[in-house]
Amino acid sequence: METIRKVNLAEKFSLIHERRSPKVAGELNGQHVKLVKMKGEFIWHHHDDEDELFLVVKGKFVMELHTGNIEVNEGEFIIIPRGVEHKPVATEEVEIMLFEPVGTLNTGNILNDFTRDTETI
Amino acid sequence: METIRKVNLAEKFSLIHERRSPKVAGELNGQHVKLVKMKGEFIWHHHDDEDELFLVVKGKFVMELHTGNIEVNEGEFIIIPRGVEHKPVATEEVEIMLFEPVGTLNTGNILNDFTRDTETI
Repeated sequence: METIRKVNLAEKFSLIHERRSPKVAGELNGQHVKLVKMKGEFIWHHHDDEDELFLVVKGKFVMELHTGNIEVNEGEFIIIPRGVEHKPVATEEVEIMLFEPVGTLNTGNILNDFTRDTETI
Repeated sequence: METIRKVNLAEKFSLIHERRSPKVAGELNGQHVKLVKMKGEFIWHHHDDEDELFLVVKGKFVMELHTGNIEVNEGEFIIIPRGVEHKPVATEEVEIMLFEPVGTLNTGNILNDFTRDTETI
């Protein structure tokens, strides 16, 4: 049986030096827990088959949506359903915990310089 | 299309008055985000088909396992794989965010006074 370990979010975030590159911190029920640091504007994209949860661990960001922008602060989460175009924007560095299915691409339907392979941390 | 709203964890927890009764705060990819307050000893149980994530939002608790106990503090999470017997214990009130498949019963393979229907908050 695999060893069960707890994960300390602050400790894991301290190991992340590249922004916009989600790192896998846990896996359960076919879902990944990912940690990502972000600053600046991401790109407009959507995920065809995956809903995505963003929980702000530190800082804040704005989720731009075609229906209006939503500021997500520390201790808040937002769920973006599959198919919904979104663009995260952070004026200052923000630490975000993501829940999404294994295999979710960070840039969704777009492949560009922001696209990253998923690595474990 | 459903309206997208953010969820503030502290605000939701302030609405929870019953301990050991997980409330659904979000749903994505067939998974539930649940919020629960706990104090005292829960029961030994396991889940046959569901892995379960416990993220401590406020306070701390001890996850008792047959392989040893693990203290989970604020800002830490632990994933209990399906089939693994566990018993959460909190000496002081703790606020926990759970991530688990829709339909997961709080007492797993056990039905007793601690068993609760899942309600949305």
